[in-house]
Amino acid sequence: MNFATIIDKKKNKQELTSQEIIWVVNSFVNDTLKDYQMAAFNMAVWFNGMSDAELAAFTKAMINSGITYDLKGVKGPFADKHSTGGVGDKTSLIYAPLVAKFGIKVSKLSGRGLGQTGGTIDKLESCTGWTGEISEAKFKEVLNTVGVSIMSQSKDVVPADKKLYALRDVTGTVDSIPLIASSIMSKKLVVPADSIILDVKVGSGAFMKTIEAARELARTMINIGKSYGRNVSVLLTDMDKPLGRAIGNALEVKEAWDTLHGKGPADLNELCTVAAAVTLVQNKQFESLMEAETAVQEVLSAGSAAKYLEDFVTAQGGNFEMIKDFDKYFTTKYQHVILAKQAGYVSFTSAAALGYLSMHLGAGRATKEDKIDFAAGIYLNKTTGEKVEIGEPIMTLYTNIDNETQFVSDANDLVQICEKPIKGSVVIDWIH
Amino acid sequence: MNFATIIDKKKNKQELTSQEIIWVVNSFVNDTLKDYQMAAFNMAVWFNGMSDAELAAFTKAMINSGITYDLKGVKGPFADKHSTGGVGDKTSLIYAPLVAKFGIKVSKLSGRGLGQTGGTIDKLESCTGWTGEISEAKFKEVLNTVGVSIMSQSKDVVPADKKLYALRDVTGTVDSIPLIASSIMSKKLVVPADSIILDVKVGSGAFMKTIEAARELARTMINIGKSYGRNVSVLLTDMDKPLGRAIGNALEVKEAWDTLHGKGPADLNELCTVAAAVTLVQNKQFESLMEAETAVQEVLSAGSAAKYLEDFVTAQGGNFEMIKDFDKYFTTKYQHVILAKQAGYVSFTSAAALGYLSMHLGAGRATKEDKIDFAAGIYLNKTTGEKVEIGEPIMTLYTNIDNETQFVSDANDLVQICEKPIKGSVVIDWIH
Repeated sequence: MNFATIIDKKKNKQELTSQEIIWVVNSFVNDTLKDYQMAAFNMAVWFNGMSDAELAAFTKAMINSGITYDLKGVKGPFADKHSTGGVGDKTSLIYAPLVAKFGIKVSKLSGRGLGQTGGTIDKLESCTGWTGEISEAKFKEVLNTVGVSIMSQSKDVVPADKKLYALRDVTGTVDSIPLIASSIMSKKLVVPADSIILDVKVGSGAFMKTIEAARELARTMINIGKSYGRNVSVLLTDMDKPLGRAIGNALEVKEAWDTLHGKGPADLNELCTVAAAVTLVQNKQFESLMEAETAVQEVLSAGSAAKYLEDFVTAQGGNFEMIKDFDKYFTTKYQHVILAKQAGYVSFTSAAALGYLSMHLGAGRATKEDKIDFAAGIYLNKTTGEKVEIGEPIMTLYTNIDNETQFVSDANDLVQICEKPIKGSVVIDWIH
Repeated sequence: MNFATIIDKKKNKQELTSQEIIWVVNSFVNDTLKDYQMAAFNMAVWFNGMSDAELAAFTKAMINSGITYDLKGVKGPFADKHSTGGVGDKTSLIYAPLVAKFGIKVSKLSGRGLGQTGGTIDKLESCTGWTGEISEAKFKEVLNTVGVSIMSQSKDVVPADKKLYALRDVTGTVDSIPLIASSIMSKKLVVPADSIILDVKVGSGAFMKTIEAARELARTMINIGKSYGRNVSVLLTDMDKPLGRAIGNALEVKEAWDTLHGKGPADLNELCTVAAAVTLVQNKQFESLMEAETAVQEVLSAGSAAKYLEDFVTAQGGNFEMIKDFDKYFTTKYQHVILAKQAGYVSFTSAAALGYLSMHLGAGRATKEDKIDFAAGIYLNKTTGEKVEIGEPIMTLYTNIDNETQFVSDANDLVQICEKPIKGSVVIDWIH
């Protein structure tokens, strides 16, 4: 094996063998293939892509750079869900209890938030005592007793991806569909879930700017899943709008809890229903998506899946009373209510801008070292497409930071009142 | 300026500004742009090329990374010649005296040989005392008095190219036409010659494997020359055959001397005549190439340009008597005569194989540190296309190394006797 031959093949659109692909990844991980060589390889992939066989080998080599989990001793089926990251996205906290209610176990690794995007681990840590830093044995125990467990993604999971992403980030190869697909899928495939549902955000603020690119990413990830014998479905969803009304950590857990009681905002309700229904169809519990959606809606209306959230948070050490008695535990020094300056239909300049405002209020991290204020965040009294009268509240900012003038000005800047409502559902397409 | 924007533009076929190109080269030279970023940039260039304007800026930035020469105080016109490297290529030693005879000064930087290819500086050092390590003042003095001077290319000439080439060599971007063109042209443009003739070798053993690629390289280099106001012509020549009968250092200087007396082998005679004639046309001393060729042939037959070689070697300290009285100065312990094992027409498996054999005999360097044996080399008693009878000498190996069995076996391996002669002229095309 030598790099000169391999890079020449890739440049000239010849398919690499599995052995060659594995050699590239392993040599990069152990530093015998240099950063500048991997950067050249990545750029050649940016231009010429990877075949299904190449990508299967590439993803496998990535996975094998670190630890993997088995689910021995736990009865399946197992489902997993992943989102490419959105503002106000607390879907996992609703999806997992929903499918658990139908007897499908949700065994999930999650991460922390950075920048405008929140992380599931951070949100759950709002409940004092809750931890994702659990052993594999504990993970299995919670799966056995509750049916849902979420574990923090260890740094030993797919270390090749961390190294590769850091390089891609500074060499112009972040926006390569095969490299994005293998990065996402490698981290999903370390836990042997039978079905995986991926929520791919599309829009100006997302990785995938166009529906065409998102469809290609979806197809690529589905094919990688196939090579591992996994049933992968992809939802393309609208990134340009925040999801639900709550942005922030405890606020989002509270909104998830409310949604599980049939009192969720329409967009969040729609996405969680579709995602859970897809998983039920993947697992052959229903023949059609429509039947599955009806069954999920009934569970939501009855509030009968909510206890899975409470039980799973409690099983991993969290004080769920804090969510149930929210106002007692989560108070902020300041609440700034942003009022409509004119009548019309609400929209926001971008979902990302809302995410950054929430971060500045204390709900997120600008750098990895920042501490999170679990009570901070934004509540959208009116969200995209809703009608507002002059003087009505549009949003409420919760913060412990004394910076009212700036926060209120930033909030007003990102509100747009339009003559006509912006419409459209959250779920754009289901690819499977 | 930031790399992320620049690499995105290059990936997406948007033209970079001169400022952006200059920033890339300068940042790479001073290490603020990392090797892995430059490797990604090079690969994007491999795929998307560079526009004429981009390449002009790129080449200029390369040149400005090091020292340049002026020719103030020397009366022109000035011509320069460069070859992409061939086995037995002593053309410069004949070309320079020829055009000097017509009043055009040849001001040239040259390098040393490595691997199968010889270097002009090494060949000239066969004449004891000759040196290319001369000052700019001495360079000008020799130009003024003789009309020809060849200086060793200092490490301070286009240092960016050395750094860039080392990176390209290990990242699969050697075979990028814009990068090859800027590498060659940057080193030519440090001396302000009015006309430049470039000999681009084409064939299985050359950088340029196909005539189409060689034509594109030629056009690219001509355009870079134009951006500097230089008149550049390109000859595409056949790389698959050795040039002339002599391979080795002193052997080649002797063959150049003989050729300057009208006693050169046909192929070498042809290439030198065309190259010199092109320069005369570029400098408007003749209207048509045919007229110029006739004039050059007359000079060769009369031997009237030969003294320029002797005078220039002497002016730079060399003992030219060694060439005139060759057998007295250049003797080797061993001479192995390779005889034809059958009758037919001669050809060789590859010119490169002859180059490597010559290197092993002591005439070349396997590594930069190796010492050269000036007397070692190969003389082709029969060359490509010539008829041979059984038992006649095909080539003679000159060496001071005791390894007859191996050398003779290697030589026999690379000889091919065919039923019909391989024909074809050396010069394939003239692009201007």
